[in-house]
Amino acid sequence: MSAADLGLPVAVPSTALFTDRYELTMLQAALRSGAAHRHSVFEVFTRRLPEGRRYGVVCGTGRVLDAVENFRFDADVLDFLARENVVDGPTLEWLSTYRFTGDIWGYPEGEVYFPGSPILRVEGSFAEAVILETVILSILNHDSAIAAAASRMAVAAGGRPLMEMGARRAHELAAVAASRAAYVGGFLSSSNLAAGFRYGLPTIGTAAHAFTLLHDTERDAFVAQVESLGRGTTLLVDTYDLMSAVRTAVEVAGPELGAVRIDSGDLLLLAHRVRQQLDDLGAKDTRIVVTSDLDEYAIASLAAAPVDAYGVGTSLVTGSGHPTCSMVYKLVSRASSNEPDAPMVAVAKKSMGAKSSVGGRKWAARRLDEDGVAEAEVVGTGPVPAELEDRQLLVPLVRGGEITGREPLEAARTRHIEARAGLPLSASQLSRGEPVLPTEQV
Amino acid sequence: MSAADLGLPVAVPSTALFTDRYELTMLQAALRSGAAHRHSVFEVFTRRLPEGRRYGVVCGTGRVLDAVENFRFDADVLDFLARENVVDGPTLEWLSTYRFTGDIWGYPEGEVYFPGSPILRVEGSFAEAVILETVILSILNHDSAIAAAASRMAVAAGGRPLMEMGARRAHELAAVAASRAAYVGGFLSSSNLAAGFRYGLPTIGTAAHAFTLLHDTERDAFVAQVESLGRGTTLLVDTYDLMSAVRTAVEVAGPELGAVRIDSGDLLLLAHRVRQQLDDLGAKDTRIVVTSDLDEYAIASLAAAPVDAYGVGTSLVTGSGHPTCSMVYKLVSRASSNEPDAPMVAVAKKSMGAKSSVGGRKWAARRLDEDGVAEAEVVGTGPVPAELEDRQLLVPLVRGGEITGREPLEAARTRHIEARAGLPLSASQLSRGEPVLPTEQV
Repeated sequence: MSAADLGLPVAVPSTALFTDRYELTMLQAALRSGAAHRHSVFEVFTRRLPEGRRYGVVCGTGRVLDAVENFRFDADVLDFLARENVVDGPTLEWLSTYRFTGDIWGYPEGEVYFPGSPILRVEGSFAEAVILETVILSILNHDSAIAAAASRMAVAAGGRPLMEMGARRAHELAAVAASRAAYVGGFLSSSNLAAGFRYGLPTIGTAAHAFTLLHDTERDAFVAQVESLGRGTTLLVDTYDLMSAVRTAVEVAGPELGAVRIDSGDLLLLAHRVRQQLDDLGAKDTRIVVTSDLDEYAIASLAAAPVDAYGVGTSLVTGSGHPTCSMVYKLVSRASSNEPDAPMVAVAKKSMGAKSSVGGRKWAARRLDEDGVAEAEVVGTGPVPAELEDRQLLVPLVRGGEITGREPLEAARTRHIEARAGLPLSASQLSRGEPVLPTEQV
Repeated sequence: MSAADLGLPVAVPSTALFTDRYELTMLQAALRSGAAHRHSVFEVFTRRLPEGRRYGVVCGTGRVLDAVENFRFDADVLDFLARENVVDGPTLEWLSTYRFTGDIWGYPEGEVYFPGSPILRVEGSFAEAVILETVILSILNHDSAIAAAASRMAVAAGGRPLMEMGARRAHELAAVAASRAAYVGGFLSSSNLAAGFRYGLPTIGTAAHAFTLLHDTERDAFVAQVESLGRGTTLLVDTYDLMSAVRTAVEVAGPELGAVRIDSGDLLLLAHRVRQQLDDLGAKDTRIVVTSDLDEYAIASLAAAPVDAYGVGTSLVTGSGHPTCSMVYKLVSRASSNEPDAPMVAVAKKSMGAKSSVGGRKWAARRLDEDGVAEAEVVGTGPVPAELEDRQLLVPLVRGGEITGREPLEAARTRHIEARAGLPLSASQLSRGEPVLPTEQV
């Protein structure tokens, strides 16, 4: 793959400007001091989960790999940096041939995580690793927030299908990434055509209220829709009077009508009424789709209602109250001098109070209890205990600059289902609580 | 401009897939029923402001114009739609020559808005206007949410400069749009290089904790930074011990040191201590920059502290609790038949309970009291009262498919300052409350 793949219907040449200016000024100063070439280890982790959440979901890893591969400084970008005096000549020179040549390890996409989990580890020279900070965090913080919300909604929905419909409530390209993350977290389809184009997600959707309002009568609209999209289509029945719309819908499409969609009102009550009415009209196989400002709590409250599918928009693409994660990218270890083979030393911020972190290159493993249920996230800097050897969480993603960790999105989706199933049962509670696993620093 | 400009360091050919599938299936069904060519009026508005907010800020209009201009279906996109059976052959044929040929009016960018304000009005055939829904809402909902948060922070900061530093906490391209929106809302600069490249925003940033940790001592790091970036640079002083870092900083850079940055701890207390220390060391002109998880409330709480600039990240790019607006795109009027010159009729969803809306093509004006302060947002469908004639809010943006409403970003920024200044004083309260103007439907 030679060009960046940003969830766009077209490739773009570089991800290099998705970068905070200070990465490049640090690079300049470190090139001058000579420390830029010290071997360095950066780790991505969070100090906490969003308040009340039981687990996090790693998402965006595949997009990170694309971003790293396409992080390069072409002439346009270098001209901009020169014109704006962002960095000096020697730094521009260094950037002009930039390719990441180091190693990246990480939790595989779809895996769950906890406070302190080393979700991603980037190793290379300080220079080549430091400048990846912003784009890596942008992707992981956004995508993981959406996937976590999606996962909670999937738990709440039980086995019923979830459809992502949030494009209009998010930045147009964030929406494409959100569709992808929703799929990893358990959604089945998306309304977003760009997500279908880019990630091959199944796309869905039939009609909005505007279509009914466009026609002279609701019946005209339903006839037009059924003639064009077939009897298996979903008719939106809440533009005027719901009950008469359902009657008209079945008159027009017959009992083969695919589904009706309810987009407003008391969904619990209405779903029961509409189900009864559909059954009375002989449309026993016509499904009921609901789509009005749902979140995981609303979905859960409809568990006993005769609802066949949920469409979720706003609350999904905004992370259901937590639109970003608090992942940080920290230098945890670096060469002790500018000599090529200098030994590594652990480093960590140590100022009073907040934001301290644990130095050293870390491994992580999930310890199981005797029933095979996860009981702790173990994070350490020393040798890996033998009993945790095969429970390690970090996998190689990039080796010597070569991407080795690409996988189909389906793999991440399946992995997430398995990872969540391995957690204690309280992971599936929607109520606020502590992370379902403690993190042990050893 | 011949290609889409999406806040990317490169143009892309089309925005047409930033679209929910149902727009295209509605198009197909309407083409078949013949209603697709009925002249139609769609309006963008919100039913409410985010809870407790006093006003909204229109933002993203410039990006909407780019998106409309570049909304076209090229061969790759048409192939995708055909392969996935999204729409039928006649619809693909129609899309292949799509260009928006209608008119768009809207509140100019930076203007404030209230519940029911007709922020954007799109007029054309149903077919050409309906398919713009998703991308228009994506842009306005995201950008307006960020601008509203930025505006509150600007009020809280008084005249002190605000720097946007949130790229790492948002989708990589949403972050670029967020920088732009922050600028409209009152921020002065951004850490985001892509925002500098794309929108010409001033970019800022010097160094992170990693730079200090990379070097053997904090002094080494400061020396390296000052040698490379000059004495006017900003040194980050909270990696180890704040007070000794400030001392070292002034020893290394002298009293010409540009600024110190504090990124953790009790900022109110620390800012006072550091100011005292800097003054005692003779560095009276060295500024203090603070950057630790600030929002409008934290900024306000530092009003009496000796702080010279604020850097804001997470809370800005997530809309300070409201990461999206609830703007909708509704058909409010359409031709009464398929005849070319059929008169227009108002239409509106009328189902029980929620989500009803007011039909008819609307004008809007802001009525002033005798002191020239805004006292009501007046929205109507009939003739405009003479006394409101020159207080109208909608301006032409697109005429017959030609973009006429482009303007420099600076114009939107200036307009926002003026619009906010024209509101009652309670608009600048950070506390929760009702919209500062009532909306009168006449």
